Amino acid sequence: MNPSHMPGRPQALWLDADSVYAFDQTRLPHETVVLEFTRADQVAEAIRSMRVRGAPLIGVAAAFGLALALREDPAAEDAAARELLATRPTAVNLAWAIGQVRGAIAGVPPAERAARAWAEARLVLADEIAVCSAIGDHGLVLLEALWRARRAAGADTLHVLTHCNAGWLATGAWGTALAPVYKAHESGIPVHVWVDETRPRGQGASLTAWELGQAGVPHTLITDTMSGHVLQRGRADLCFVGSDRTTASGDVCNKIGTYLVALAAHDNGVPFYPCVPTSSIDWTLDDGVAQVPIEERSHDEVTHARGLTSAGSVEAVRVGPEATAAANFAFDVTPARLVTGIVTEHGVFPASPAGLMPLREKIGV
Amino acid sequence: MNPSHMPGRPQALWLDADSVYAFDQTRLPHETVVLEFTRADQVAEAIRSMRVRGAPLIGVAAAFGLALALREDPAAEDAAARELLATRPTAVNLAWAIGQVRGAIAGVPPAERAARAWAEARLVLADEIAVCSAIGDHGLVLLEALWRARRAAGADTLHVLTHCNAGWLATGAWGTALAPVYKAHESGIPVHVWVDETRPRGQGASLTAWELGQAGVPHTLITDTMSGHVLQRGRADLCFVGSDRTTASGDVCNKIGTYLVALAAHDNGVPFYPCVPTSSIDWTLDDGVAQVPIEERSHDEVTHARGLTSAGSVEAVRVGPEATAAANFAFDVTPARLVTGIVTEHGVFPASPAGLMPLREKIGV
Repeated sequence: MNPSHMPGRPQALWLDADSVYAFDQTRLPHETVVLEFTRADQVAEAIRSMRVRGAPLIGVAAAFGLALALREDPAAEDAAARELLATRPTAVNLAWAIGQVRGAIAGVPPAERAARAWAEARLVLADEIAVCSAIGDHGLVLLEALWRARRAAGADTLHVLTHCNAGWLATGAWGTALAPVYKAHESGIPVHVWVDETRPRGQGASLTAWELGQAGVPHTLITDTMSGHVLQRGRADLCFVGSDRTTASGDVCNKIGTYLVALAAHDNGVPFYPCVPTSSIDWTLDDGVAQVPIEERSHDEVTHARGLTSAGSVEAVRVGPEATAAANFAFDVTPARLVTGIVTEHGVFPASPAGLMPLREKIGV
Repeated sequence: MNPSHMPGRPQALWLDADSVYAFDQTRLPHETVVLEFTRADQVAEAIRSMRVRGAPLIGVAAAFGLALALREDPAAEDAAARELLATRPTAVNLAWAIGQVRGAIAGVPPAERAARAWAEARLVLADEIAVCSAIGDHGLVLLEALWRARRAAGADTLHVLTHCNAGWLATGAWGTALAPVYKAHESGIPVHVWVDETRPRGQGASLTAWELGQAGVPHTLITDTMSGHVLQRGRADLCFVGSDRTTASGDVCNKIGTYLVALAAHDNGVPFYPCVPTSSIDWTLDDGVAQVPIEERSHDEVTHARGLTSAGSVEAVRVGPEATAAANFAFDVTPARLVTGIVTEHGVFPASPAGLMPLREKIGV
């Protein structure tokens, strides 16, 4: 199944009356495999194995996972929530989405819980899509202003650099970091995207490049080692990235390697904007480096690289010697001082406690 | 053949009366294949394809290549020098080594040229090894001082981070960036090395990890995206890297991604030292970003990753979609302001025109 089979904009997760469907993102871009979920443990496995990934999307998936658990057993709430929460320790809106569903079923009679949870999960998905679209609108304003300046200076293309995948595959639809890019492309701005490969799992090479290709957005794949050079040579005008967890002080936890992109952007005066659903801001934290737990994943992801062999199968090939030990830190923290601004569904805010205060007041947290 | 078959320290290139031998570094660490060169075009092909790589080593190999050309035809000097110089545009000591051989045969009768060139190439190799050993001695002083401080603070290990491969495989013997590490290990300092994978070609994963493993030096492979996090968390005490070309102002051109490591080291107050044979300093340049030509290589290196399949063959697997365009910048430039000092065979010097002046006076350039 191809996302273009779906009505409207492409979505990474969709429904019928009985089941939840999602792309197996570990098989893209070489194979398009659709997963069907009818039980919570299937959803938990898919999140744990990163078949379903992207901070916003795993929140949505977990909400439906809880609803599916309640369909099997109206008393399963606590156990299912625990299983789903344990899948990925870093993403804050996983907990947020599960909390939304639990709030909606509080005090609801057992016989009605599953239906109520399913309805709430649908709201979480619809909200997620609306949030991403609004992030795209606010990010588009930044791109439009930059494009006016660049065009006046004689440029024929606006260059955006991104890391990992924060496109529609990572969210309900649109994406976070890629939402402004899609909106710019659709409004006629000649945007080109530098796509970081994003080792170890290569979500830039495998997912972002695929997404942008499907949408016809010009893009160029580079290795993670190249973003500094591209920024130093003035070949990128702006960086957009996603975020798994942002603190009240504006520190941004995102896919490993984001901090290096931010350092290079800062060193060369290139704007660096995380695109962040408000639900992924953790208002209880004020020091990202000290307080955000960093998930460590299997060393195999580092000692191997996955791709398509010449024979047409997808295989993980060993890149180092047999005996070599490896470490696999899945995220890093970009300190607020390197962040130009944080793009949210409510507007663009400075990355500081004071800068984020108006947002905090607006949403009442 | 294993390097331990050779007398003394492992070498990346060695001789008998008729031939030059070197490891095919595109086959390591999965296969140990020895190349035999009897003609200059074989040497040129090996440098171009990076079977023989590492700035110091390609200088040595080119010197022998020129000698082999003269053995076939004493009038081949100009054509062979041109062919060898064209193989890699960035490394300055490729030109330096060829210049050494050409200087030695200037005015020498045709019948004696080949023997004289061969003798000069042997001197280039012997000098290269002596230079690396001296770089190791000066770098060891830095590690010893750091280890005294760390041990006093309760540490049980000294952590060095390196990028790409600047070990004995890249030089005559010892290496540049790894020479101090080997000397520290052999002198009993409990040194551990964080090894950047170094995409696209993965010389960290495939060569540095292999070298360190052969020597029994503890090390951990990380992806290039992880060096910032390791440095931010205080888990590396010092960075050593190589350099293909350093300017008179102390700007350092090295393998793509080095600039990002330097930014992260600087941001976290971790010393960052390029280890540089004086022959690789280009005294005619004073602005690395503006003046050093950056080699662009085949896009296939970025769209694919090479490694060992489960069936035991070495294959390049495609990491992105079929249609994706890529760019492949092979080097970047680290501005002098990010460099703690430059380790040479004559000592450690500040990375500035004034700081390098005593070195310049010492060697008379």
